[in-house]
Amino acid sequence: MQPPQTSEIDLIIQAGWIIPMEVDRQVLCDHAILISKNRIVGIEEACTAKHYKNAELVERPNHALLPGLINAHGHSAMTLFRGLADDLPLMDWLNHHIWPAENRWVSNEFVRHGAQLALAEMIRGGTTTFCDQYFFPEATAAAAISANVRCRLNTPVLDFPSPWAASADEYIDKGLQLNETFQDQALISMAFGPHATYTVSDKPLKRLQQLAESRQIGIHIHVNETAHEVREALQLTGLRPLERFHKLELLSPRFQAVHMTQANERDISLLAESGSQVIHCPESNLKLASGLCPVKRLQESGINVALGTDGAASNNDLDLISELRTASLIAKLVDHDATALPAYEALKLATLNGAKALGLEHETGSLRAGKQADIIAVDLSAPELQPLYDPISQLVYSAGRENISDVWVAGRQIMDRRTLTTIDLDEVLQHTKQWRNKIASSQ
Amino acid sequence: MQPPQTSEIDLIIQAGWIIPMEVDRQVLCDHAILISKNRIVGIEEACTAKHYKNAELVERPNHALLPGLINAHGHSAMTLFRGLADDLPLMDWLNHHIWPAENRWVSNEFVRHGAQLALAEMIRGGTTTFCDQYFFPEATAAAAISANVRCRLNTPVLDFPSPWAASADEYIDKGLQLNETFQDQALISMAFGPHATYTVSDKPLKRLQQLAESRQIGIHIHVNETAHEVREALQLTGLRPLERFHKLELLSPRFQAVHMTQANERDISLLAESGSQVIHCPESNLKLASGLCPVKRLQESGINVALGTDGAASNNDLDLISELRTASLIAKLVDHDATALPAYEALKLATLNGAKALGLEHETGSLRAGKQADIIAVDLSAPELQPLYDPISQLVYSAGRENISDVWVAGRQIMDRRTLTTIDLDEVLQHTKQWRNKIASSQ
Repeated sequence: MQPPQTSEIDLIIQAGWIIPMEVDRQVLCDHAILISKNRIVGIEEACTAKHYKNAELVERPNHALLPGLINAHGHSAMTLFRGLADDLPLMDWLNHHIWPAENRWVSNEFVRHGAQLALAEMIRGGTTTFCDQYFFPEATAAAAISANVRCRLNTPVLDFPSPWAASADEYIDKGLQLNETFQDQALISMAFGPHATYTVSDKPLKRLQQLAESRQIGIHIHVNETAHEVREALQLTGLRPLERFHKLELLSPRFQAVHMTQANERDISLLAESGSQVIHCPESNLKLASGLCPVKRLQESGINVALGTDGAASNNDLDLISELRTASLIAKLVDHDATALPAYEALKLATLNGAKALGLEHETGSLRAGKQADIIAVDLSAPELQPLYDPISQLVYSAGRENISDVWVAGRQIMDRRTLTTIDLDEVLQHTKQWRNKIASSQ
Repeated sequence: MQPPQTSEIDLIIQAGWIIPMEVDRQVLCDHAILISKNRIVGIEEACTAKHYKNAELVERPNHALLPGLINAHGHSAMTLFRGLADDLPLMDWLNHHIWPAENRWVSNEFVRHGAQLALAEMIRGGTTTFCDQYFFPEATAAAAISANVRCRLNTPVLDFPSPWAASADEYIDKGLQLNETFQDQALISMAFGPHATYTVSDKPLKRLQQLAESRQIGIHIHVNETAHEVREALQLTGLRPLERFHKLELLSPRFQAVHMTQANERDISLLAESGSQVIHCPESNLKLASGLCPVKRLQESGINVALGTDGAASNNDLDLISELRTASLIAKLVDHDATALPAYEALKLATLNGAKALGLEHETGSLRAGKQADIIAVDLSAPELQPLYDPISQLVYSAGRENISDVWVAGRQIMDRRTLTTIDLDEVLQHTKQWRNKIASSQ
């Protein structure tokens, strides 16, 4: 990349601390990020910022700048079901609460309004890229484009009908069509999102494998989420879910195994040898008592692990700051080791590792010249974050979503000192209230 | 209790929802709490509030009122060490980081400033009663009285000297003296806070037992916090720590066993038979990889379990909203049961159970006529808490400390729509910065 021309710099964000997530534990004090249009062109000492006279200067002296957070697994529109059914195991929650509610309520409009609410929450929580797997993905994409948030759409595939499609082939055909629809949208990228081993049969999975291979796009699927799922799969097919996907030749660096709370040695070998990605959703796994993903063992086997909140119906928020803290605390428990998943590594789950899991590491996930300007500022001046010995420790172990002050995606500011600039929050809350009243009155 | 005279009501707090924590899962819609001086005198439907014309009326239509949260274990002044040493196991953290820092820095002034910072954070997080166990407890008490926060002082006892006392007897004598000093302070109550089995020998424990018995006051001690502690105690004394305390006749309803991550059948019997209290500190236990308190098993044995954050040096915050959520999520993991510690039970850990553990259940911990007016309001209107199907679910699984809007202790408002009214926050942050600079420059 050529060094930036002074005249090309149109935005400079200057901060007390910058954590680029490129070099282990690196914290730059009093530096500035130089941005030209949608991309980062450099990081320099703050004192040099004054040379770029034509650029807009944003000063955040009490703040840390980080790459925007990446939510590598979720179902945005399900935010409209937040708190509808709690304290239940996965299959009871799905069979008796979530699936009936989805059949009754899910529509293009439901998904648009649900995604808008989710986007408001995600932006306020510092998320700049989110991965979605839900019905009416075109509605989620439209909401993401309007909010200027980077979105990976994993178009759903199931054997059974839903309000969006009648058959596995129709799900896949609609997904293919959306690949065309959104191919020129810089913020939207596509993958296939078959639901799980117990909801998708071999034939559609084989078709997906061939399509994903020929188009070099990802496959994103719930796998080994619970012990029950693994037991049932063994009974029905003689194979653990991951083994089944391996036989179907789905595993590759573009395969994203979501949850993986059940991972035996064979599972870990399959993931490692294929270069597959794992997406860890600790709070959902805890809340549904599904088990725990063995992050340290996976990482020691060379497997990339990213972080997701899952849907707000099973979490019950889309808060990656809380999620990465939980990931770190839980990793120490799983390994009986207080040094497991230290603060910097936890931050990495929600930034660079997320970008790698989605194949977006050349575009986002760290602050480096050439990457998209997906940046968040975290205000470190709150009493809850004092005294400040170590910004990385504070971000992971003390900060809350409320400390996120500003968010930029592709160089555009979408939150300015807690005010959303691309979302009409009052309108979103109005729609949410209408859905709440409809859904609650039918319970 | 006599029905309130209209003229005696001086404050009415009216809210969208009131959760008294007296009746399982009870939520009162559009009600008001009637307060006379420092006490609750009744809860009525909001429409009747207009009859009390001389009372101040506070309206919080989008808010839930709850009993103030009770932090049943902590070391407030250690907030000045927040983030100083992370990702380390308990004994390494204590021996090589915390104890050296304490020996170097702890003084009356350090404790006063540290407690003030902790109080600012605790009030902002909805805590109205906190339990403290630290050196210079007189400085913590002064800060609590000034901030108008209810405080249980557990005066420390150790075999080894500290900046506060030179011998076990001096610790105890100073504790006794503080019992006199604070006996007329309504917000301050006292107990003894011997540190742990590995730091206090039999002789001072026996003296404490006699004093606690004759004065009917509590004993608050770290016990069975780690497997290492239990192994070491078995080697040195032939007894597990709790068994040792039983032999010393310390166990009773006034005995507060903090942590209890290691609880075998015998431990559980000892706790249940003696009516002892358990204080669960899940985030500290996770962060230091100490293990997990088996809350459900303890509760099924009839043992009261309360909640504490522990000190901010090992958590790294004093946030009970996050702590009770973690308690609920972790309980489901420990028991492989998504129905374990459901939302309402988690709220109870941080309210009524906390009051019971400290023997303060006649004064605080729930909203009932006759109890002190220790009340918090939580704003449920944020996008992160929408849609609102169930206020209890939202409080436990979706709310954050930032949603606490108002706090009253003994009828006095100490936070008004996020503004602290009894603490000069700028001054507190100024002192914190001075300590930070001194401590960081010596690292």
